[in-house]
Amino acid sequence: MTSQTATWVDGAPASVLALPDRALDFGDGLFETLLLRHGTPLYLDLHMQRLQRGLQALALPDCLANVRLQLAQVANSVQESEWMWSALRVTVSRGSGPRGYAPPLTPRPRIIITVTQLGRDCAQLSEGAVLALAEMRWAAQPALAGIKHLNRLEQVLAAAQARAAGADEAVMLGQSGQLISVVAGNLFLVRGGQLLTPAIQDSGIAGTRRQLVMERWAKLLGLGVQETNLSLDDLATADEVFYSNSLLGLRPVASFGDHQWRDHSVCQSLFEQYRGELP
Amino acid sequence: MTSQTATWVDGAPASVLALPDRALDFGDGLFETLLLRHGTPLYLDLHMQRLQRGLQALALPDCLANVRLQLAQVANSVQESEWMWSALRVTVSRGSGPRGYAPPLTPRPRIIITVTQLGRDCAQLSEGAVLALAEMRWAAQPALAGIKHLNRLEQVLAAAQARAAGADEAVMLGQSGQLISVVAGNLFLVRGGQLLTPAIQDSGIAGTRRQLVMERWAKLLGLGVQETNLSLDDLATADEVFYSNSLLGLRPVASFGDHQWRDHSVCQSLFEQYRGELP
Repeated sequence: MTSQTATWVDGAPASVLALPDRALDFGDGLFETLLLRHGTPLYLDLHMQRLQRGLQALALPDCLANVRLQLAQVANSVQESEWMWSALRVTVSRGSGPRGYAPPLTPRPRIIITVTQLGRDCAQLSEGAVLALAEMRWAAQPALAGIKHLNRLEQVLAAAQARAAGADEAVMLGQSGQLISVVAGNLFLVRGGQLLTPAIQDSGIAGTRRQLVMERWAKLLGLGVQETNLSLDDLATADEVFYSNSLLGLRPVASFGDHQWRDHSVCQSLFEQYRGELP
Repeated sequence: MTSQTATWVDGAPASVLALPDRALDFGDGLFETLLLRHGTPLYLDLHMQRLQRGLQALALPDCLANVRLQLAQVANSVQESEWMWSALRVTVSRGSGPRGYAPPLTPRPRIIITVTQLGRDCAQLSEGAVLALAEMRWAAQPALAGIKHLNRLEQVLAAAQARAAGADEAVMLGQSGQLISVVAGNLFLVRGGQLLTPAIQDSGIAGTRRQLVMERWAKLLGLGVQETNLSLDDLATADEVFYSNSLLGLRPVASFGDHQWRDHSVCQSLFEQYRGELP
């Protein structure tokens, strides 16, 4: 691989996609974004578990074995490159089909994998992020919350708002004004030595690193984690704030509007757990 | 055109789409479905007005003149064919861009047009539809309601539920259980000689034929139209039920669960108005 990005469709190097495709027409599909170190995917099983939940929610055929196979082939070709860190996006589309919303009775899913070289050292904790508040809120949709489907207009528009505000990221609320996430990551607040993270049963994505914080890393540090309804006031009055995603691991938050945080010790300690697990 | 469907990308006949594309990755774009009679698009201006509202909501460049130009070229080639009725879908994608949710600063939208020959005579009123109730509800999302963007997973899954129920169409509710629409159309109830249609400020699509019923056809028949919050009870107790979409115009509803309607006179009268306007 000579350029900074490469794409495969159904296992073959590709620069185009056959039309029609239901991911293009309706966002009818799912995706995962994995971090690769020297071509080794991190937390592959967690990503595949979320993908499987998505396949079930969308009534897509179980193509997980095929996804794993194609992903391994791409990872192999990254291992042969000079790329230390890369982002691998795998998209599963319901594939082609006749005109109209109704999915084909026997869909043949397409697997599209794009891998992009990353310039930064992902084993290093990022500097504190400046957060804005996105005007765009998450839709309330419990039937599709948690999974990583392709209907992502809200995050696209919120990301544009973050950039327009000169911020690194933006806080996204739910329809009732409750905290949900940042655009590309799950939020954590530290209050009284405990971790709080927004409930995401109506909106948001169940992040793999969120799961690792909740089920493993916090425990290793003796920290409790509560998944609950949280407000902007909770954010503003938190002792410490950070967010998680698959490419950054964890990132401390330096400021949100007038609120500033200089203590990032919990985030730093959790990040050390993460760093200790890197392949 | 020899096959039953044909596709153009940015004005040229195409069978593939260049990767990456943000419509594929995030559903980052819009579409319109127009009915063509002998290659003449019906109510082109209404479709272009909704598309323009969508371009503004998504902060996409104003590419309407280009859409109109390419659409006219495709319509010309349909005029030269034997196709009496056809469905033209025009998709506007934000185009390619770097990895991640944030849209490119200077997007170059892509215009994808697919035209499909229709077998039925669209100047004839369809037989009464059998409606099921979709388990999948519309998300509550006022910031994106009304426009016809590409995030359409809810309708895809509701269409599958309609088919599984053996129905022609399915009623879709909002998050509070309020009536919104059918999967591919807007709902109308007749009660006491007046028309009622669900309010769509939180969910749903502002259909072109819905607009024509509300602003023109009902007036020509001396019927009032009220856009309001409606429940399943309102549906069940209506004197008459029908729905509207761009390909059917208006379609009477024969049944919904145990409820049956034999009187379709209002729908028939409105359809006569529509038929009188056909090119």
